[in-house]
Amino acid sequence: MTRIRFHQELDQLKERILAMAGMAEQAVDIAVQAYTERDVALCERVIANESAINRAEREVDEFAIDLLAMQQPMAVDLRFILAVIKINTDLERVGDQAVNIAQRVMNMIELPASELPVDILGMANRVRGMVRDALRAFVERDTEIARHVLKADDEVDRINREAFSSLSRSVCTHPDSAAQALDVMSIARNLERVSDHATNIAEDVIFWVRGADVRHGAGLQIAGFDQEGPKRVGYDHPTI
Amino acid sequence: MTRIRFHQELDQLKERILAMAGMAEQAVDIAVQAYTERDVALCERVIANESAINRAEREVDEFAIDLLAMQQPMAVDLRFILAVIKINTDLERVGDQAVNIAQRVMNMIELPASELPVDILGMANRVRGMVRDALRAFVERDTEIARHVLKADDEVDRINREAFSSLSRSVCTHPDSAAQALDVMSIARNLERVSDHATNIAEDVIFWVRGADVRHGAGLQIAGFDQEGPKRVGYDHPTI
Repeated sequence: MTRIRFHQELDQLKERILAMAGMAEQAVDIAVQAYTERDVALCERVIANESAINRAEREVDEFAIDLLAMQQPMAVDLRFILAVIKINTDLERVGDQAVNIAQRVMNMIELPASELPVDILGMANRVRGMVRDALRAFVERDTEIARHVLKADDEVDRINREAFSSLSRSVCTHPDSAAQALDVMSIARNLERVSDHATNIAEDVIFWVRGADVRHGAGLQIAGFDQEGPKRVGYDHPTI
Repeated sequence: MTRIRFHQELDQLKERILAMAGMAEQAVDIAVQAYTERDVALCERVIANESAINRAEREVDEFAIDLLAMQQPMAVDLRFILAVIKINTDLERVGDQAVNIAQRVMNMIELPASELPVDILGMANRVRGMVRDALRAFVERDTEIARHVLKADDEVDRINREAFSSLSRSVCTHPDSAAQALDVMSIARNLERVSDHATNIAEDVIFWVRGADVRHGAGLQIAGFDQEGPKRVGYDHPTI
């Protein structure tokens, strides 16, 4: 395989992971819409789409591993493929969280609607923004955007803790809507996990672009990669 | 680097990931002990150990990526290194769940002890058994043990759902111990996530040994890897 052909394959890998990302994002969007509209049909759609996301995950993984096996890429290309393999796992789990939300919403719809002291839609919008930003960081090779995602995660954790506290109080003070409060608590937690996955994706982008491992606040350079730096490479597709 | 030297490096990678696994397992053990003994000092120990686990994760990752970059391994060796990279991520998150449990136990200790309709210790023992089995499957290259872990996960999901239901009822019927019930609900959920990570590890072992992607119930063979089959390779260290 020529070098040009290899870069075409990397392009294709990028397109495939972005298609996978689109499916995961859509699953979350529909699950949140199902929550706000109390719509069983939307819940069922999210649940039915899960197998397509799982299939896409397997295909991206196989493609990435074939590239690793056949091309034996060095440095920045190796890091790119490893980042895609990790991002792929996180996107599949974003899809799982959308399914969890949909299942919980189906449960809620059986119960009377009740006012609860939590802004799920606000939290959802924030979390969806994080997923979008993490993917934008990936497409644009932009570690600044990625770092914003890491910061946003702390804020979502805080919102989730507050939601947990106020819903706990509500469970005790309004036992008639305790079941609904517990469902919403689950949904908030699922959203918080989506935010964790967006954070993982942002970390993988930084790992790829900078060759730095930024996990857990460390700024370590990975031996053997430093010389590559953040320079742009041929397969960075300006139209994606 | 000679072939023998490469296999020594793979040996070393295996030893390092097993040391990392020991740290993650111990964190869960201590967190569960903290729960049963309502011991703040044990909680603090789990929380203090988190940074050591995070450091170990980075070191294993860097070592694995260096091996990929410098050795450009084929087929079963490539799959082994990729499996280690994935298992490493899951072990670090097992450590995170131990920290979550420890934090929740610290919260519970502030409240009066109360009888709750859930067998956390039974659930914890089952989950710890899964982590142990997933690692045994890894050390012994045993896909049968790995498949048992996948089955056990369904059972833990069922136990967690039952715990959620009975604790939800308890929250409504015994509002005086609602806060404790919510804490225990969190702990059950954290244990269920440890079980998810054990399942991921088991899937990675099967991926490595069989070259089959067994995720989501699929039995697909990955192109280019089938010929390697499940045969034993030189770096399989009998004494580990």
